Amino acid sequence: MVLNKKTKVPEETISEADFLKIRESILQNIRPNDSEKQRLEAAKSELIEIVCRTAEKFNETDVIPISVGSAERSTWLSGNHDIDLFVSYPEEVSREEMEKRSRRLLMEVAKTGNSWEDRHSEHPYIHIRKDGFEIDLVPCFRVKSASEIKSAVDRTPFHCRFIKERIQGKEDEVLLLKQFMKGTGVYGSEVRNGGFSGYLTEILVIRYGSFENVLKKAAYWRFGENIDLMNHQSQPHSDPLVVTDPTDPNRNVAAALSLTRFSQFVNAAGRYMKNPDIGFFTKPDYPPLSPTDFKKIVSLRGTDWMAVTFPAPKKADDTLYPQLFRLENSLAEILTANDFTVMNTHAFAESEGNCVLLIELASKKLPPLQKRTGPPVWAVENTQSFYDKYKDHPDTFTLKIKNEFIVAEIVRKYQSAEQLIADKILKEAALGRHVRDAVLSGYEIIGIEEICKIKSPAFWKMMNEKLTKQI
Amino acid sequence: MVLNKKTKVPEETISEADFLKIRESILQNIRPNDSEKQRLEAAKSELIEIVCRTAEKFNETDVIPISVGSAERSTWLSGNHDIDLFVSYPEEVSREEMEKRSRRLLMEVAKTGNSWEDRHSEHPYIHIRKDGFEIDLVPCFRVKSASEIKSAVDRTPFHCRFIKERIQGKEDEVLLLKQFMKGTGVYGSEVRNGGFSGYLTEILVIRYGSFENVLKKAAYWRFGENIDLMNHQSQPHSDPLVVTDPTDPNRNVAAALSLTRFSQFVNAAGRYMKNPDIGFFTKPDYPPLSPTDFKKIVSLRGTDWMAVTFPAPKKADDTLYPQLFRLENSLAEILTANDFTVMNTHAFAESEGNCVLLIELASKKLPPLQKRTGPPVWAVENTQSFYDKYKDHPDTFTLKIKNEFIVAEIVRKYQSAEQLIADKILKEAALGRHVRDAVLSGYEIIGIEEICKIKSPAFWKMMNEKLTKQI
Repeated sequence: MVLNKKTKVPEETISEADFLKIRESILQNIRPNDSEKQRLEAAKSELIEIVCRTAEKFNETDVIPISVGSAERSTWLSGNHDIDLFVSYPEEVSREEMEKRSRRLLMEVAKTGNSWEDRHSEHPYIHIRKDGFEIDLVPCFRVKSASEIKSAVDRTPFHCRFIKERIQGKEDEVLLLKQFMKGTGVYGSEVRNGGFSGYLTEILVIRYGSFENVLKKAAYWRFGENIDLMNHQSQPHSDPLVVTDPTDPNRNVAAALSLTRFSQFVNAAGRYMKNPDIGFFTKPDYPPLSPTDFKKIVSLRGTDWMAVTFPAPKKADDTLYPQLFRLENSLAEILTANDFTVMNTHAFAESEGNCVLLIELASKKLPPLQKRTGPPVWAVENTQSFYDKYKDHPDTFTLKIKNEFIVAEIVRKYQSAEQLIADKILKEAALGRHVRDAVLSGYEIIGIEEICKIKSPAFWKMMNEKLTKQI
Repeated sequence: MVLNKKTKVPEETISEADFLKIRESILQNIRPNDSEKQRLEAAKSELIEIVCRTAEKFNETDVIPISVGSAERSTWLSGNHDIDLFVSYPEEVSREEMEKRSRRLLMEVAKTGNSWEDRHSEHPYIHIRKDGFEIDLVPCFRVKSASEIKSAVDRTPFHCRFIKERIQGKEDEVLLLKQFMKGTGVYGSEVRNGGFSGYLTEILVIRYGSFENVLKKAAYWRFGENIDLMNHQSQPHSDPLVVTDPTDPNRNVAAALSLTRFSQFVNAAGRYMKNPDIGFFTKPDYPPLSPTDFKKIVSLRGTDWMAVTFPAPKKADDTLYPQLFRLENSLAEILTANDFTVMNTHAFAESEGNCVLLIELASKKLPPLQKRTGPPVWAVENTQSFYDKYKDHPDTFTLKIKNEFIVAEIVRKYQSAEQLIADKILKEAALGRHVRDAVLSGYEIIGIEEICKIKSPAFWKMMNEKLTKQI
């Protein structure tokens, strides 16, 4: 497939064999071998047994463990040691009773792990580390269908069953697609990342049959691409990609996919089909940037940097990041509305550490002169108010009519970006609950010298990627 | 009429008497007295006689002089000594013959003046100074109607007759309206100014009956206001004010009125009707700004100034200014397209001197970092070209997908506004014929120090007005 006429490689030069060679080479590395599979199966069985035994101990005969996730449908990448075990209760059980009973049960199971932690996103669950496996134990209700769920996680067993019934023989295609997505940075549906989920990847393979066929189609996707496996024809969504959930017609499986990740995938798919290369399957490594190198790059870019920092709220990423992104966008909007040229913004948070909202500006300073365009003269009363406000104001340079508008040239109130943000962050910025509490507990507005004092390696890895990445 | 509720003056406090007092006071100064009228009439008669005698001398019995202009319809302001005499030829005469004959005739008449000059706008004519009068001698054709003209000036006698037949008894209203327009800076339809013509002013008075009634209506005009005295209902125009020419239905009398002047008049009319004041009738005087004061003001504004200068083409203002304005706008567009923030631009030309195109910028310098947003990823071929262009370019900082676009961060080519204009003025700027020749003959791009060396008082008067004006 030739996408560019100028640098064209004749279509025939890319053969079936080229794709095959890459597939085989990649699959060798990402397909779990037999002993790895056996270890996982053994760990899964043991875990199920422990849950059943513990339930018996508490005389809970209505509890049924359901294995879900990629471990259950053989679509997991070698080296991945995730086990997702759902512990299901009859839907007649009240939410209160279920939470009480499941807590008692799971705490007992948790003790058999090497370590455990209590996690809470939309729904409480327990995470265990045991013999090298990362295990999620998630309580849920056994509802009749995915469209009648009592809690958000109840649909997962339906997803798992749907995929399991259809994916057999296509597991390698899923592995390849997942690895391609990881390599191109679009895999992972957590809010912070906004990429493709495992379930979504599997649906794509079911829809188009093979890894290469998914990419061949994706290369020509546009905003609003619609995939409706079961022909549910449900109401429209305004997301970049709309994949009707086969088990729940009103849900878009790709609702969490950001426009950027969607577009990255479209672009990467097109480039791969034109020039297949093993490099697409490996995410480049971005080692931490040193503050010295950071300063060198900044000096080449000639931009001004500032950051707002505050203690990271102790919340799950999926709770924290939407609030961080809202604040990030809101700060950029405030700066733009006040004539500052925002080049880039970046959000960073480290649990037990700080949140850092970085802002790169063309300049932190603006000239004193500000042009304020008022209403058109035929908005007579508003024009009069504008005239009254600026006519004899000591900060007015000129007051004129330009085209149909009344225009004042005045002394700018905010000539410094820091001063603007300091003044507006609590008054006008979009502050979600947890971020608001954190900002109120104390925030700083820092410049490049203070930014250079940030110690977190994760921060400097992010900075390296942000400042050097080339697709 | 109360336009603003907050600072409202009860409507009753402005009485008929307030308006009357102002009218009388203004009219005393602008209404020509009897001896002034007699002198003008005498000068007009003498001129007509000279034209007739000279025509006789050349045996040109088909020549008829027609007095037009405000002198003919008694709508001239005291102190104004303009006489417009049209010298008409039968329409059967060829343009060539008419130009030859009229030239011979008018040159002979010109000799009777104290001085004369050959003027040429759209149409050749001769300007004479004689005994304190400014006389335009304009050759034209006597056509049957204003819609069948052979040259642009042929419709003027029709305008004059139309007004003369209807303006009697309303001359004072015209004088007041003209003086109000002069005082508020909207009078004068030459291209450089883009304001109201005398003919337009007279039509407004005929339409609304009195000076105050014109303002009362104008205060609520909006873009596209339509005045159609003779109910011609001709095709629509997209001008701010559309006044169908009573003598030529397809022509908009207000075609040369700029949106700014239209809006200024709407605004001034509203303010006058709310707070009548004698000050509206006097244009503020702007004495030449000294370069020292200019620098002080610039330092308060904190802006960067540059100018493009070149020798003024020896052309009439109405020929030169459209070209200057086009270049002025075109320079602003080039700067804006290259990320510079243009605060203001001003065009100035002095015959026998230089043209100066002034540009006030937030900053003459931009940081090296430039963001270039490419096509959306679903424009597959364009995205590929963009990718190929920037992927391995030494000036590329980053190449990413952001939302649906491919975006490159690159080293900016034009970090200096002067360098940008020097590079683009001949290649991309809109250069009319005369301005192109002048720019090609040599132009300079100067900064504030060189701007301060400009000697022209007219230039520094303009600068004073531009930098301090308050409506």
